[in-house]
Amino acid sequence: MQNHIPSDPDFAARVRDSFSRQLLMTTLGAELTKVEPGIVEIEMINRPEVTQQHGFIHAGAIASVLDSACGYAAYTLMPADTAVLSVEFKVNLLAPARGDRLVARAEVKRAGRTITVCNADAYITNGSEEKVVATMLATMMCVRGRTELNG
Amino acid sequence: MQNHIPSDPDFAARVRDSFSRQLLMTTLGAELTKVEPGIVEIEMINRPEVTQQHGFIHAGAIASVLDSACGYAAYTLMPADTAVLSVEFKVNLLAPARGDRLVARAEVKRAGRTITVCNADAYITNGSEEKVVATMLATMMCVRGRTELNG
Amino acid sequence: MQNHIPSDPDFAARVRDSFSRQLLMTTLGAELTKVEPGIVEIEMINRPEVTQQHGFIHAGAIASVLDSACGYAAYTLMPADTAVLSVEFKVNLLAPARGDRLVARAEVKRAGRTITVCNADAYITNGSEEKVVATMLATMMCVRGRTELNG
Amino acid sequence: MQNHIPSDPDFAARVRDSFSRQLLMTTLGAELTKVEPGIVEIEMINRPEVTQQHGFIHAGAIASVLDSACGYAAYTLMPADTAVLSVEFKVNLLAPARGDRLVARAEVKRAGRTITVCNADAYITNGSEEKVVATMLATMMCVRGRTELNG
Repeated sequence: MQNHIPSDPDFAARVRDSFSRQLLMTTLGAELTKVEPGIVEIEMINRPEVTQQHGFIHAGAIASVLDSACGYAAYTLMPADTAVLSVEFKVNLLAPARGDRLVARAEVKRAGRTITVCNADAYITNGSEEKVVATMLATMMCVRGRTELNG
Repeated sequence: MQNHIPSDPDFAARVRDSFSRQLLMTTLGAELTKVEPGIVEIEMINRPEVTQQHGFIHAGAIASVLDSACGYAAYTLMPADTAVLSVEFKVNLLAPARGDRLVARAEVKRAGRTITVCNADAYITNGSEEKVVATMLATMMCVRGRTELNG
Repeated sequence: MQNHIPSDPDFAARVRDSFSRQLLMTTLGAELTKVEPGIVEIEMINRPEVTQQHGFIHAGAIASVLDSACGYAAYTLMPADTAVLSVEFKVNLLAPARGDRLVARAEVKRAGRTITVCNADAYITNGSEEKVVATMLATMMCVRGRTELNG
Repeated sequence: MQNHIPSDPDFAARVRDSFSRQLLMTTLGAELTKVEPGIVEIEMINRPEVTQQHGFIHAGAIASVLDSACGYAAYTLMPADTAVLSVEFKVNLLAPARGDRLVARAEVKRAGRTITVCNADAYITNGSEEKVVATMLATMMCVRGRTELNG
């Protein structure tokens, strides 16, 4: 693992501001619960509004919070005055997501000037128990000099 | 390409019933607009509720409709009395999703007894123009004999 | 699909030169059989040297020719004086690769300034029959101004 | 992480026998260096025969050893009288693979009855230094009752 040293000391405020503008996260009931250099956590309450046909959390809702967690984990290490975009991601669903709350934990695997690669796991909690239900491997891009993109 | 011959003549009703129970699709404002053997289309209006920080449709919302489209494309060819689950999927974001409406078009690439592989593209429309904004390659699983899983 | 117009009229010679320096392709017995704007084909004879434990062509050998085909399909559209690198790829194995010869056909899905996304299918031929055995979705990168990277 | 308890006490001999029949591994100069429950390591000497156009190890050669490592990590936990097949894998290339020797380390992330998901990293060593150059997320399948598939 690389040592994660943010080039922007205000990275956490920058991430929180950008996250607050992701209206899909509000729609899904997702909250940003940790922002550290190279690491981001997002939590989502399990509600009927995010489920699939069997009553489990929909793979797309899981992918959404994992993608945001990966994007912002990458963004913690990007310079100020840049924007982050998802290039691609892959998710494996490991177990049905049945339970009270989903926690997505993302970490930067390698940060480059343009491309940053992140890993993330999604856990479901039932009271004090925790179980991994999905894992993501994602490629994020740092966008410079496009003033219409902010955050 | 394989010739797509559904084993269940009632495949379309079965897919529509299952889709109607995916409450995430209702939350995202997504509608099932085509169900044919091995082919499914889902459309989603672009609203602020599905956007990311730059005002584009969030990659997770795009992945959600692509995943449902792939899952149901696979499910059209599965026997009655089975259920469909996503094993994994990968999405590439090809262009910012700015526009009125997103259309996800999924097709079965290869249907096996247990594993079905699907391709899907997501297009954004602006009036009469259409542009591809994302592409998915997904692996779906046919689940038999688990009576708690329906659809 | 984008219209594929190469910026470098000598793209084919540039691709052929680079391919000839990929010694892994020689090791695998792979040959470049088509180079067109945004499209590349590579063929590999099935020999014991490229097999896995059941005598099929190894998924890694299939991925190798698919990756080279995607990289060079992308490279046909890149400017002269650039290099191409694989960012990531995903492969689905669709059927056991039993037969005389493998053909990998790659096409550019979307070409950007930095990132190009490609699709590729691998077919196995038995005499005149042809069957798809694998499919790839790949992300390639155009590298500029690094004089140690050529091709 | 799951606790990895092999159902077959002879898993290591079974894996070593199957690996020895993967002739691609011989072609690439790859060796099986660790077999533990849910964990496998494969090493490959960097030789010109496995390189791409810039002299780095080809992404396809890296994917090949990562795929075999994932497949055999999964296979350590599968019952005797089964076979293992790759369903799909995704690789991110993190840094140019320049150095003496490549080590692929795979671990089972979740083992199911039919589907096993594995993670693997590839490291390049230069003398005593070690650097991660690629990471894989892979889906493997346990095949039962097909007597023509052994290992």
